[in-house]
Amino acid sequence: MATPSSSSADNIIDGKAIAETIRGEIKEECAALLQSSGVTPGLAVVLVGNRTDSATYVRMKIKACEEVGIHSFKFDFPSDVTEADLIAKVAELNADPAVHGILVQLPLPGHIHEQKVLDTILPDKDVDGLHPLNLAQLAHTNTHGSSRKFDLKTLPYHAACTPQGCIELIERSGTVIEGKEAVVIGRSNIVGIPVFLLLMQKNATVTVIHSRTKDASAVCKRADIVVAAVGRAEMVKPDWIKPGAVVIDVGINSVDDPTSKKGYRLVGDVDFAGCKAVAGKITPVPGGVGPMTIAMLLRNTLQGAKRGLSGGNGN
Amino acid sequence: MATPSSSSADNIIDGKAIAETIRGEIKEECAALLQSSGVTPGLAVVLVGNRTDSATYVRMKIKACEEVGIHSFKFDFPSDVTEADLIAKVAELNADPAVHGILVQLPLPGHIHEQKVLDTILPDKDVDGLHPLNLAQLAHTNTHGSSRKFDLKTLPYHAACTPQGCIELIERSGTVIEGKEAVVIGRSNIVGIPVFLLLMQKNATVTVIHSRTKDASAVCKRADIVVAAVGRAEMVKPDWIKPGAVVIDVGINSVDDPTSKKGYRLVGDVDFAGCKAVAGKITPVPGGVGPMTIAMLLRNTLQGAKRGLSGGNGN
Repeated sequence: MATPSSSSADNIIDGKAIAETIRGEIKEECAALLQSSGVTPGLAVVLVGNRTDSATYVRMKIKACEEVGIHSFKFDFPSDVTEADLIAKVAELNADPAVHGILVQLPLPGHIHEQKVLDTILPDKDVDGLHPLNLAQLAHTNTHGSSRKFDLKTLPYHAACTPQGCIELIERSGTVIEGKEAVVIGRSNIVGIPVFLLLMQKNATVTVIHSRTKDASAVCKRADIVVAAVGRAEMVKPDWIKPGAVVIDVGINSVDDPTSKKGYRLVGDVDFAGCKAVAGKITPVPGGVGPMTIAMLLRNTLQGAKRGLSGGNGN
Repeated sequence: MATPSSSSADNIIDGKAIAETIRGEIKEECAALLQSSGVTPGLAVVLVGNRTDSATYVRMKIKACEEVGIHSFKFDFPSDVTEADLIAKVAELNADPAVHGILVQLPLPGHIHEQKVLDTILPDKDVDGLHPLNLAQLAHTNTHGSSRKFDLKTLPYHAACTPQGCIELIERSGTVIEGKEAVVIGRSNIVGIPVFLLLMQKNATVTVIHSRTKDASAVCKRADIVVAAVGRAEMVKPDWIKPGAVVIDVGINSVDDPTSKKGYRLVGDVDFAGCKAVAGKITPVPGGVGPMTIAMLLRNTLQGAKRGLSGGNGN
């Protein structure tokens, strides 16, 4: 098998390098879009309160927008903002033709009903891809016609960012998904279920494993592709992995580590050192799925702008 | 293993008898609801044109309503009705507090955009359970809390009727779903995907098989529970079935049969005679899943009326 340029010489899938490649593609497409139609994609980011982590994430997203040629619009609110004021801002952004994507940075303060605010975002501007109507589209197998061609770059709706990132990592590291057996570990709304739907749309035969699965290791060991998104540190052991399988680790868990200066270290849901010896390819944590999420956010924003031009962005 | 009263003496799951039992339960609950709150559940049925089959289905549904104590309201439109008039009727029914469920009999004439009419139905009155927002709720694992108790009779939204019928047939014939391996054959929006989601919510470990699956028979043979919903006559053969598995056949296919008076006969997606010898339990076609769909429609209407009372029927 040829070694794709986007992965390093060994069997580690380099999420940072693949995300960088995708950001380069987006930059080129933004430039072409500007030239052909005069349109610059726009992302509105809403930040409430002064959580350091949220402020960091927002800064990273805005910087990423600037680098690829997407306009960003940042709106700061104090932590005592009312739900009504936030919803009014979202409604204003829904109506603004310069805004193709709206991102409300989570978590919101406790007095605000998060889902209510998120559901206010027009599905066509929901670049996180978590609106129920976007999830339902992903489950809608007939949408994609009898050819069953399913191309993430031309979907008529927004698919969730982290799940899309998993698919890109699998495909760009040289694995064809169609016809493979895949196992998704975890059934969360934001990762497990959309990853299942994406793999199924890509014509894999997919099984979802969860806390009530009997003999999870035996079920997992059938898989050519494993996506772990369960949030339990190093749960997936080498004897869960079929030799040669592709392993994508969505987990980010903090574990105590007295030898580290910070007193802890970050690990995935997969026992990386052990599984690396069995897997065909594997993502590290950090540096695997993580960098892909922002790249997919940028791509969703670009696609939203393109759909707007073709008249598909009404609602 | 004890033989439940709802199945016949051999290993055939009697859908007609189980549907009858459920209709009896609904009748009791409707009587209790009337007594406690003065409310009678109401189902509006909209029929367009004069297709004989559609008229028959509508008549069956209205008769079933009468038998259990649900009000039915029938609206007939000529086949040249405009889309706008149909949508106006749905909007009127959305606003009518005596109507808890709205059913638009399909197919609609070609000049009407079916999905547009269906999407007009309020999700809370979509007793067919096919509205995208209802499908998204079914995919929403967090809705059901950490106890993971998932009770079809108290869902806060409408799940699709035929898929619900499959679950009832499995459970009422004495099979516990939790922890089992299940395989769904077919990934349609109206059956395969919702059946997958329901089995997953019921804590089975579920795999979806489809046209691009390699070695489907081997994958199917792992399953303790098989739901076939692919629309191909007798595709599932005895060597696909693990001895003792529960087999639910959603297919209804017409095949030529010169020995029959009508020249054809109805068969499922499962080779019934062959698989019956291997399966622990199996549904026939007809008389298996078919009778369950109307029973689930009645139950959705009843649940809609109950939710309306508790203030959960706003939108």
